Amino acid sequence: MREVCVIGLGMNKWGELWDKSLRDIFVEAALEAMDDAGVDKIDSMYVGCMSSGLFVHQEHLGSLLADYLGVNPIPCTRVESACASGGAAVRAGFIEVASGISDIVLAGGVEKMTDVSVDGATFALATAADQEYEVYQGVTFPGLYAMMARAHMEKYGTTREQLAQVAVKNHKHGSMNPLAQFPMKITVEQVINSVMVADPLTVLDCSPITDGAAAIILCSLEKAKELGLKKPLVKIIGSAQATDTIALHSRDDLTFLKATQKAGEVAFKMANKKPSDIHLAEVHDCFTIAELIVLESLGLTEKGEAGKATENGMTTLGGKIPINTSGGLKSKGHPVGATGVAQIVEITKQLRGEAGKRQVKNAKVGLAQNMGGSGGSTVVHILEVA
Amino acid sequence: MREVCVIGLGMNKWGELWDKSLRDIFVEAALEAMDDAGVDKIDSMYVGCMSSGLFVHQEHLGSLLADYLGVNPIPCTRVESACASGGAAVRAGFIEVASGISDIVLAGGVEKMTDVSVDGATFALATAADQEYEVYQGVTFPGLYAMMARAHMEKYGTTREQLAQVAVKNHKHGSMNPLAQFPMKITVEQVINSVMVADPLTVLDCSPITDGAAAIILCSLEKAKELGLKKPLVKIIGSAQATDTIALHSRDDLTFLKATQKAGEVAFKMANKKPSDIHLAEVHDCFTIAELIVLESLGLTEKGEAGKATENGMTTLGGKIPINTSGGLKSKGHPVGATGVAQIVEITKQLRGEAGKRQVKNAKVGLAQNMGGSGGSTVVHILEVA
Repeated sequence: MREVCVIGLGMNKWGELWDKSLRDIFVEAALEAMDDAGVDKIDSMYVGCMSSGLFVHQEHLGSLLADYLGVNPIPCTRVESACASGGAAVRAGFIEVASGISDIVLAGGVEKMTDVSVDGATFALATAADQEYEVYQGVTFPGLYAMMARAHMEKYGTTREQLAQVAVKNHKHGSMNPLAQFPMKITVEQVINSVMVADPLTVLDCSPITDGAAAIILCSLEKAKELGLKKPLVKIIGSAQATDTIALHSRDDLTFLKATQKAGEVAFKMANKKPSDIHLAEVHDCFTIAELIVLESLGLTEKGEAGKATENGMTTLGGKIPINTSGGLKSKGHPVGATGVAQIVEITKQLRGEAGKRQVKNAKVGLAQNMGGSGGSTVVHILEVA
Repeated sequence: MREVCVIGLGMNKWGELWDKSLRDIFVEAALEAMDDAGVDKIDSMYVGCMSSGLFVHQEHLGSLLADYLGVNPIPCTRVESACASGGAAVRAGFIEVASGISDIVLAGGVEKMTDVSVDGATFALATAADQEYEVYQGVTFPGLYAMMARAHMEKYGTTREQLAQVAVKNHKHGSMNPLAQFPMKITVEQVINSVMVADPLTVLDCSPITDGAAAIILCSLEKAKELGLKKPLVKIIGSAQATDTIALHSRDDLTFLKATQKAGEVAFKMANKKPSDIHLAEVHDCFTIAELIVLESLGLTEKGEAGKATENGMTTLGGKIPINTSGGLKSKGHPVGATGVAQIVEITKQLRGEAGKRQVKNAKVGLAQNMGGSGGSTVVHILEVA
């Protein structure tokens, strides 16, 4: 296997992009990534997208987007793993470069979610859960994560305020990210008093519906050195993916995410790192409770301790291990297929020292964790300055 | 890159499987493939599926199917390239084994198409075309291929009877395949006089709506030798994928498929073979005209000659190069995400000498060509007895 670097980054301003179609959004990010890498030719392309079929009635994104980007006849494949589709696209690109089949691969992600009604988006997102066993019974995603939150509060004494702190922190980080959908700062009181969605989660505990795309250029280390790039090279030193039961009712423990643990374990081993070596991480905070359980499942905090760690500022910029400096899904937005790719964009920016106001000092090793559904799939990447 | 073999095959009886859900169908084929390979453990899994979101309101198939197959926490990713999703899944598995990341990978494909109304299926399939530029204008897939047929008839003098001969041949082959959805023999007169769908294509020129799955087990050559398998080893010696414009109106020539040509060219080069080295092929006959244009685009016949070659029996079992001995999409059925995987099942069966009544004598090298939409994406694999 060859060593693989991230050499180009692209991401547009996320939000409700009424004036752009899915293809416009994707191509903006892809061209920016190619420009950032200084390459005008790619060998292959992967696109992470959860449900363009349900959101905009368009499948076959590989052909559509390679065509619109003007790069056909290169191979282009869409990969899907619900909200972990972006991470899965990055991993597919990583494997292709590592294998030696291609030198330069674009891994992108996109979702155009606002073209359907609100009911439509909730319906489309619910297809990440078990349609026949869970959704048919009336459960929604906020409902699934609310059950996880209740179980965590019961088992570990995690407080309502600690959940809210996750949102407050991520909005604080997002206020320094010019590409974030909701860059306003919020308070614990605002989170707790906002509209109830699924008790105990209010609307400010939930990530939003977003249109957006992100793209990265992956390249073999050897080829990257030949290209003589000016920006610091960032290597992917760990890449892992794992699955768990899709339905929540099949799990032993609602307060832990086995797929996240497994993917983390494999990625740490591959990277020859341990949780304490990580300087910053982007994790999948689709709901505030998700961030806490993910931190515990990755071993970045002890079990049951993530709420307190958040309260104590350990995960805030300036703390021991800043989490979601980009604003996370919560403030930056969550165009589901793009999220996993945008995490790699943020980690790479940080490791390059290009994160501006939200720069983590001396960041050399970062982790990205992207999750599908209620944790039925997870992709973890570990990156390091080359 | 490591050498990669196909060591296990699974496919169920295709048709209108009202009593089974998508997960049942997939797991049947997957278990059969594992059993055929004699392995009870796989390292990773890919699932090709075009539109489970629109057909059965279920995304996140990686988690769903790994769970139902009982193999979590292994990585499992869905890949999509419209009707070439199965071929793309095989290619993703091939790359993963070739890279050295995994030794044993299951590549499967599935589509459950009959749970929606006929209108629903036509709508879902149309998402493989350009929704904004083509489908919005009212075009359907039979309409797109009918335009290609008209152009081919005009340019090369291809006759209505020659188109019908493709269907007649594939049903003749399919009559020897116990897993085919429509194993009845048909005549040229029946094809021409059946219900018109899009002039000149009648219903018997079109592949059907099908529920079905197929799966293969991919393994590194080294590992396969260690396993001491009893069945002949079949190697994948060429794997390529290419894209073209998604919309038909953007192409220079309606009578040729550039993505098929490109994928064929790259696969032949990788395999160090030429078209005349191929003993049999499975190609994407979603409509009768498609088979003719594909044969010409791959260089298996000269341009404009595939109609005559079909008429003369060159592509029939016993002819110079038997095409679609399985019955093809036309007779065997076309559960879109499964088709590309089932092609590899058929080629491998033939190369192993396990094809029964439809066995091609002395078959050592076979090719599979799987295509998305109106040819906007194509995957080509070349296989050889190890």
